[in-house]
Amino acid sequence: MILLQTPVIVLNVKTYGQAIGKDVIQIAKIMEEVGKETDVSMAIAVQATDIYRVKNEVSIPVWAEHIDPITPGSHTGWMLPEAVKEAGAVGTLINHSEHRLTLANIDACLTRAEEIGLDNIICTNNVATSKAAAALNPQFVAVEPPELIGGDISVTAADPDIVRNSVEAVKAVNDSVKVLCGAGVKNGDDVSKALELGSAGVLLASGIVKATNKKEVIQDLASGIQ
Amino acid sequence: MILLQTPVIVLNVKTYGQAIGKDVIQIAKIMEEVGKETDVSMAIAVQATDIYRVKNEVSIPVWAEHIDPITPGSHTGWMLPEAVKEAGAVGTLINHSEHRLTLANIDACLTRAEEIGLDNIICTNNVATSKAAAALNPQFVAVEPPELIGGDISVTAADPDIVRNSVEAVKAVNDSVKVLCGAGVKNGDDVSKALELGSAGVLLASGIVKATNKKEVIQDLASGIQ
Amino acid sequence: MILLQTPVIVLNVKTYGQAIGKDVIQIAKIMEEVGKETDVSMAIAVQATDIYRVKNEVSIPVWAEHIDPITPGSHTGWMLPEAVKEAGAVGTLINHSEHRLTLANIDACLTRAEEIGLDNIICTNNVATSKAAAALNPQFVAVEPPELIGGDISVTAADPDIVRNSVEAVKAVNDSVKVLCGAGVKNGDDVSKALELGSAGVLLASGIVKATNKKEVIQDLASGIQ
Amino acid sequence: MILLQTPVIVLNVKTYGQAIGKDVIQIAKIMEEVGKETDVSMAIAVQATDIYRVKNEVSIPVWAEHIDPITPGSHTGWMLPEAVKEAGAVGTLINHSEHRLTLANIDACLTRAEEIGLDNIICTNNVATSKAAAALNPQFVAVEPPELIGGDISVTAADPDIVRNSVEAVKAVNDSVKVLCGAGVKNGDDVSKALELGSAGVLLASGIVKATNKKEVIQDLASGIQ
Repeated sequence: MILLQTPVIVLNVKTYGQAIGKDVIQIAKIMEEVGKETDVSMAIAVQATDIYRVKNEVSIPVWAEHIDPITPGSHTGWMLPEAVKEAGAVGTLINHSEHRLTLANIDACLTRAEEIGLDNIICTNNVATSKAAAALNPQFVAVEPPELIGGDISVTAADPDIVRNSVEAVKAVNDSVKVLCGAGVKNGDDVSKALELGSAGVLLASGIVKATNKKEVIQDLASGIQ
Repeated sequence: MILLQTPVIVLNVKTYGQAIGKDVIQIAKIMEEVGKETDVSMAIAVQATDIYRVKNEVSIPVWAEHIDPITPGSHTGWMLPEAVKEAGAVGTLINHSEHRLTLANIDACLTRAEEIGLDNIICTNNVATSKAAAALNPQFVAVEPPELIGGDISVTAADPDIVRNSVEAVKAVNDSVKVLCGAGVKNGDDVSKALELGSAGVLLASGIVKATNKKEVIQDLASGIQ
Repeated sequence: MILLQTPVIVLNVKTYGQAIGKDVIQIAKIMEEVGKETDVSMAIAVQATDIYRVKNEVSIPVWAEHIDPITPGSHTGWMLPEAVKEAGAVGTLINHSEHRLTLANIDACLTRAEEIGLDNIICTNNVATSKAAAALNPQFVAVEPPELIGGDISVTAADPDIVRNSVEAVKAVNDSVKVLCGAGVKNGDDVSKALELGSAGVLLASGIVKATNKKEVIQDLASGIQ
Repeated sequence: MILLQTPVIVLNVKTYGQAIGKDVIQIAKIMEEVGKETDVSMAIAVQATDIYRVKNEVSIPVWAEHIDPITPGSHTGWMLPEAVKEAGAVGTLINHSEHRLTLANIDACLTRAEEIGLDNIICTNNVATSKAAAALNPQFVAVEPPELIGGDISVTAADPDIVRNSVEAVKAVNDSVKVLCGAGVKNGDDVSKALELGSAGVLLASGIVKATNKKEVIQDLASGIQ
């Protein structure tokens, strides 16, 4: 059972210095506020250390940025899916561009996420890997060309075909998988273009985290869905 | 253009102590000899250090056990596809159970193999990852349950469904991809059963490398195809 | 400035299922209680998801099990030292046997820990690596033979020389570094033996986490120091 | 017993496209020729695929660029020390900047190299890691600041203190370990400066491999030792 409503704006705060502790709680609150104002679905993936604090302050879905493909036991310093869930996360990114996993471990992480009931997004880098990820049957595939991540040009402008073709390739393999896109997404136009290209929403990071006026940016992003 | 004739017996000599230098040349010669006698297609994947020596001694296809997803440049100690090819390899295993790669790197290795003309087998561990690998469009997917590798019971007896279902899943995604199976394969019955289950051959290691009478074992394996 | 008082008992709860959320808070409270009763120095390393919750409930030092050698920025799902500190950790394990780092990254993690003021323990596996770790100038080196970790026999009984010789080797390189030992430590005799061998305390996990009566075990361990 | 005569010029050809197969044999022959002319000790580390071919053509020491910390067995695609030795290598780099290993594995590689009789150089990135590496008791430590590797300015000019201080730190821990330096080394002045700073030679790559007139460059480098 998928919990994340679509179309959706998913924020990944990565390990940005602007998004730790009280600061990430503040960002989550703004997202919640704009989500309520605009009725646009929003979710936030935060550092493991902040999951508990953030989920106690907001009603939007809080996600983990990563899980490791482990079961409870002797795995010092790795990310146990049960720990992430207990802290309050309802979903997890898997295989982010900055945290790649082996194919066998992507499959194992997905199995673990399903076992304990975590929503899931497998991140991919091109059409071929999006298709491969879809074959594993996740809820979402988020395609993000690594060379555009953190940049000024949205994937939807720089490489619309990667989104369009990923959607097509994913659907051909597994029609139940939804596609998100990301990299360089910064405003409402980028979001509406993403939906036009067939995606179910966006995954973004610096566009919000590094913005001076975060509320304004989140409202703008939401305007692309409304 | 695929070079490897099927059905095929592919030997991976891993880093076994019985298969270095002159010893692996000897094994390759026996395979060549039995291949000629029985008209069964055979190939041998050897350590990088032995590719040149083996290919100078036999006419059967010599493969690399691994390539890294790199282009010529500053990558000290990694396995350059061009170097493997120049030494005489005509194909390469990718993502063996003992040498897992990230999904993005499996895709990148496959792209590199295609660019320079290396046959390729992506190794996988279950039905889901076989299906995902097929989506990347390799020549072969070789499914090997890790828990059976090196063991006494052939995957075709211990878990025939993983072979049958991998073949089905792979064909559903990409009909041009051929499926091999491996783990515990030791004799002609295992090989004929593998073909019955829809695979195009077997990938094996200890069954030959650790055998006292290697010629006898290879003849027996070949009898499963003849 | 080192914060951890010695001799000390450091508990690493790893990713044990018995030590998540409320359960790990309970374990920390028992340690705090016994620490007060016995005046023995205690610390607990917990999963990243639990640092904030645990440190809000107890006065004993809460540690992270791991940090990655990164600075704030784009490192999705990795462990940022600043995040661990903000959540309330006052120290961190580095290079645990179950989470090995490259030599360059051990050095980088240590530099980061020093920059932001985290106490630190570099974990090692034998005399040679203990000596190498000491050369990096951490506060503590904790030597734990991997083959004894989680077992029934304490390193102090199974291999006292590794402790004695590590202490000697570490002191020869860097007299300011204190040595802990671990693996199989379960009772007060193991702890007192560890101190006799020249160590400044113990690092343990299953001995406490898997105990039925945790208070009794912690009291017994503390008796080896009193 | 150390085989490599010092002072020495060690060339690491990495995976440069200019140094595969016949081309790397040609480079090795020029080094041998200049070595004989000038009586300067030279060695060449080549890709695993080329060890056998190169050592059959030249009398200078041929080294591996890397070994993995494994023993003969099931390690598909990894670099077995025995295979490297059988192919003709007499030594190996360990932990190159482009191929970092965990501290435990550096120690394990060194142990394996000693067991089968391979000369060895542990590569490091700064004074602290050079000191740590020396504690493991290799024959050589080669310090190379990663940011200078492949650049136009020699480490001996850009950061002479890293060489001087590494020599001092290494000797303080283990007087029998010799220090090499590298990164940006291109001519005889760089080499003579390296020796002045206390090193026993240089480790270089692009300075030779990318040179148009390789013989001239190697002669110039040798002039720094003569």
